[in-house]
Amino acid sequence: MTRQNSVDPDILDKCRQYRGYIEAKLGFRNYWYPTLFSSELVEGEFKTHHLLGDRLLLARVDGKVHAVRDRCLHRGVPFSRKIECYKKGTVTCWYHGFTYRLETGELCDIIANPKSNMIGRLRIDTFPVIEAKGLIFVFAGDIEPPALADDVPPWFLDDNVYVRGRRTEVDANWRVGCENGFDSTHIYIHKDSVLLEGNDLLLPLGSVPTSKEAFEVVDEPTGPVGVYDKLFEHCEPVFEGKVDGETVLHGHMGATQVAYNISLWLPCVLRVTPWPGPTMTQFEWYVPIDEDRHFYIQTIGKTVESEQDKADFDREFDEKWNELALKGFNNDDIWAREAQQDYYRHDEAWLGEHLYEADRNITSWRSLASRRNRGIQTREHTLTIGRQI
Amino acid sequence: MTRQNSVDPDILDKCRQYRGYIEAKLGFRNYWYPTLFSSELVEGEFKTHHLLGDRLLLARVDGKVHAVRDRCLHRGVPFSRKIECYKKGTVTCWYHGFTYRLETGELCDIIANPKSNMIGRLRIDTFPVIEAKGLIFVFAGDIEPPALADDVPPWFLDDNVYVRGRRTEVDANWRVGCENGFDSTHIYIHKDSVLLEGNDLLLPLGSVPTSKEAFEVVDEPTGPVGVYDKLFEHCEPVFEGKVDGETVLHGHMGATQVAYNISLWLPCVLRVTPWPGPTMTQFEWYVPIDEDRHFYIQTIGKTVESEQDKADFDREFDEKWNELALKGFNNDDIWAREAQQDYYRHDEAWLGEHLYEADRNITSWRSLASRRNRGIQTREHTLTIGRQI
Amino acid sequence: MTRQNSVDPDILDKCRQYRGYIEAKLGFRNYWYPTLFSSELVEGEFKTHHLLGDRLLLARVDGKVHAVRDRCLHRGVPFSRKIECYKKGTVTCWYHGFTYRLETGELCDIIANPKSNMIGRLRIDTFPVIEAKGLIFVFAGDIEPPALADDVPPWFLDDNVYVRGRRTEVDANWRVGCENGFDSTHIYIHKDSVLLEGNDLLLPLGSVPTSKEAFEVVDEPTGPVGVYDKLFEHCEPVFEGKVDGETVLHGHMGATQVAYNISLWLPCVLRVTPWPGPTMTQFEWYVPIDEDRHFYIQTIGKTVESEQDKADFDREFDEKWNELALKGFNNDDIWAREAQQDYYRHDEAWLGEHLYEADRNITSWRSLASRRNRGIQTREHTLTIGRQI
Repeated sequence: MTRQNSVDPDILDKCRQYRGYIEAKLGFRNYWYPTLFSSELVEGEFKTHHLLGDRLLLARVDGKVHAVRDRCLHRGVPFSRKIECYKKGTVTCWYHGFTYRLETGELCDIIANPKSNMIGRLRIDTFPVIEAKGLIFVFAGDIEPPALADDVPPWFLDDNVYVRGRRTEVDANWRVGCENGFDSTHIYIHKDSVLLEGNDLLLPLGSVPTSKEAFEVVDEPTGPVGVYDKLFEHCEPVFEGKVDGETVLHGHMGATQVAYNISLWLPCVLRVTPWPGPTMTQFEWYVPIDEDRHFYIQTIGKTVESEQDKADFDREFDEKWNELALKGFNNDDIWAREAQQDYYRHDEAWLGEHLYEADRNITSWRSLASRRNRGIQTREHTLTIGRQI
Repeated sequence: MTRQNSVDPDILDKCRQYRGYIEAKLGFRNYWYPTLFSSELVEGEFKTHHLLGDRLLLARVDGKVHAVRDRCLHRGVPFSRKIECYKKGTVTCWYHGFTYRLETGELCDIIANPKSNMIGRLRIDTFPVIEAKGLIFVFAGDIEPPALADDVPPWFLDDNVYVRGRRTEVDANWRVGCENGFDSTHIYIHKDSVLLEGNDLLLPLGSVPTSKEAFEVVDEPTGPVGVYDKLFEHCEPVFEGKVDGETVLHGHMGATQVAYNISLWLPCVLRVTPWPGPTMTQFEWYVPIDEDRHFYIQTIGKTVESEQDKADFDREFDEKWNELALKGFNNDDIWAREAQQDYYRHDEAWLGEHLYEADRNITSWRSLASRRNRGIQTREHTLTIGRQI
Repeated sequence: MTRQNSVDPDILDKCRQYRGYIEAKLGFRNYWYPTLFSSELVEGEFKTHHLLGDRLLLARVDGKVHAVRDRCLHRGVPFSRKIECYKKGTVTCWYHGFTYRLETGELCDIIANPKSNMIGRLRIDTFPVIEAKGLIFVFAGDIEPPALADDVPPWFLDDNVYVRGRRTEVDANWRVGCENGFDSTHIYIHKDSVLLEGNDLLLPLGSVPTSKEAFEVVDEPTGPVGVYDKLFEHCEPVFEGKVDGETVLHGHMGATQVAYNISLWLPCVLRVTPWPGPTMTQFEWYVPIDEDRHFYIQTIGKTVESEQDKADFDREFDEKWNELALKGFNNDDIWAREAQQDYYRHDEAWLGEHLYEADRNITSWRSLASRRNRGIQTREHTLTIGRQI
């Protein structure tokens, strides 16, 4: 039941430079991932959530969010089947009353046998949590967590950046999400987007690269690790779509230049600047749910100077950008990923695909992710349910 | 297609003392299992039924129940797709008229080729049948069947015991069913049961074992093989549920002591005495359907002296115990098993779980079942469709 | 993900003479297969279709039908998710504007990068197409296609033969379809068919073979390869169905002899003459969709001398034969195949079945198909998406 995510050694051998990336069907371990929006978990509430093939229980206690694996260490049942909480900061399993401290995972009481030797000696896995910019970030891994700033794109955490967003479940592997978002020339699918009407955007049909090095890898020992797509600076944009020399399509010739600074960061987060308008930046995550699904967490960040600025952006987000950009425009990306998944669920896809010149940022991303990732998530990781204290 | 139930050798190696039990995803062969209630199969009727990954055809002829594998030996189709019966005591396959004696399985005629050499020389598998206490017991295996009394708990077959019951399909492996039922301290989940209202039952929240040997294995060369849970005699019952020293829950302090004699028997049957009231005993089977489901066959036995006693118990069963006990109370067990299955469908669960002091009866059951079972059912067994006479 | 159709070597070893046939879960490569009816694809239309585990895109351009694999070579997405066609005879992928000539598969333009080096150097797989008798035949394979006449039964392509038909998806492997159709004595299932009423057909319940060689293999170096069932000439028909010597059923004693000439041809096509009436012939294909499904393509051919004859047969087909024969009569075959699939989806079925005397035409078919097939289709074949020009 557990070896589903192993890859045929022949395939790994033929794609040696992407090995870790190809193995990481369930994502990379030892990173901070966004889960729920902060507003989705109110004081005293418990919610279950999926991350990297695993199931978490999130709870907010005195304002602070805790995350534990949603599995009792005794017989492996999920707490969330019937939440019992008899004392703030604890959760009690409905099956035999195994009670855990949410902060430490410690088994602090067993109601059905209060004298058990296991009490105080075992704990379930807890997951470090940080709330930032309206998102609950959870650290999935075994190492000492790095700073959150290492795992999000530059600028996201800056003080005067205000962030709004939404989350959707997409039926495609997380890597398909990353590559669709980072793919410079996939703008072709957006040529008829509802976002183009009334917004005077400049959006070509594609790009002719004029240099082989149209990307820049950020690969320092500390800080975020990622790739900048520099195609915008090294290309001729395509505004006339031709078949057999005949023009059959036109790009969108608006006055507003957007999306000229695109980058993709470990573990799975894209930054597009400026987007969807000249004073905003879109940050979006493709967070692994399991081998075949990811949470698409879309956010738009904007510099604000005052509460009034926030309120203005709140209104603008709710009335315009959420509908036209996050839903209208990006819905095309969602179905494109789901269409791609049918092929990439076969590991042979990594051998069979034919990437072209404009995809060099994607291959540099794959190499970087294979070389710099902090660990590969496996099904075995999700089945662990208890450790000695 | 057929090796689904093999277990990773590493896991078997690490759980050596439970090896046979862990392998037995489809249950144990060479045992008597209850199938339908007698009342579900009237004279002349045919019904299909699932048992240990296999499909049976049951038929009642002149009062006697016959069971054959529901698969024609010619091309493997199920008779039950379209039952044809042209002569009492036979079944004819709808595909080519292969006709079998239900008693012996003998291929006695082929309508589409009445001169075939196969006639009289081949048979399909038949399954020995005994009706007892209102249940149709079927023997699944290859050996000479032992007495039914060897495969049911003591007292069940006694002359003056009258039995009523019900059957439900549960989405959990049969072993999860056995262990949930036998688990002494799972009473915790029943703390709010509808059965407690109006019935003055004594039901603690759990138990502190006062001895490591709170079980008794019955392991004689003949007769039923099983384990008695003796925790009741070797424990302090828990009536105050505490977290961090503070009482947060109370057990049910009724005057009626129940369920102080609990035992689990091969192949998969639990006896609880007295239950659900002081003059009754519950016998319940967790009969394997396939790797992920079992039939939960619940019965209540009561000593009767007369037809009037029977009629009285019939009324009481229909009006009260079926609703409050078999449905109301045990429905909690059903969802508990289904919640547990999500973990135990991974073979790693047998390594990852953390059993506690009160589970020693369960580990003694696993050892006993591994040592004393009469055979492991496999998918291959269910694909056999014809034998030489 | 890709080795689903491999068969346990032990089973192949025990069924050595049928090896290729048993391996061919997805069908045989390098044959002509019917797909859509010509009338289902009008000028300018694109349709997706499934064949041998693969997905095709069919398009009609200036009357001519083209077929390509429905997968862009860049990232493997199906064109059919959103068809874009900007110039007659081409298809453009919705993702990045990769544009292909339908005739040759050549990548002739990439709208998002019109200067890519890949243009003109790669092609997707195309599939040769022939339209005949109102059907679109597609050649699935890598060799130089033989004449269509080699892959259809004799008489089908004759000039004055006029053909009508229908197509249904059936939940059974294609071999189950072939064997059900060719099986001489499966007429038993049709004993109550709606077709028998009002049509004075002679239809026995079965046949007693009077010779072991009641079949004739056609196995020449060129031309169709198949097996004639000669049971009709070497049997005593069964009109009295008996159990224990007693007559329990009667065959249909009509005056019209039908179906006395039955043959099965590579890759998967049955001919029944005359059927469903004395002046018609039924040709039916069991075309693999995937391991568990086939398209059942039923056609009836009739000799016509004039347009009036065609119009008369059109009316007769629509009013009578389509309803009574292709639907009414053959629906019994459809459910019989689906009932059989439950067993034959296990490879053990080829070892466990018990064929009888009347099945010798089937075993000769299996041997012939194993010996003469032009190749075994595998999942790997369907994942190829680009080749050098």
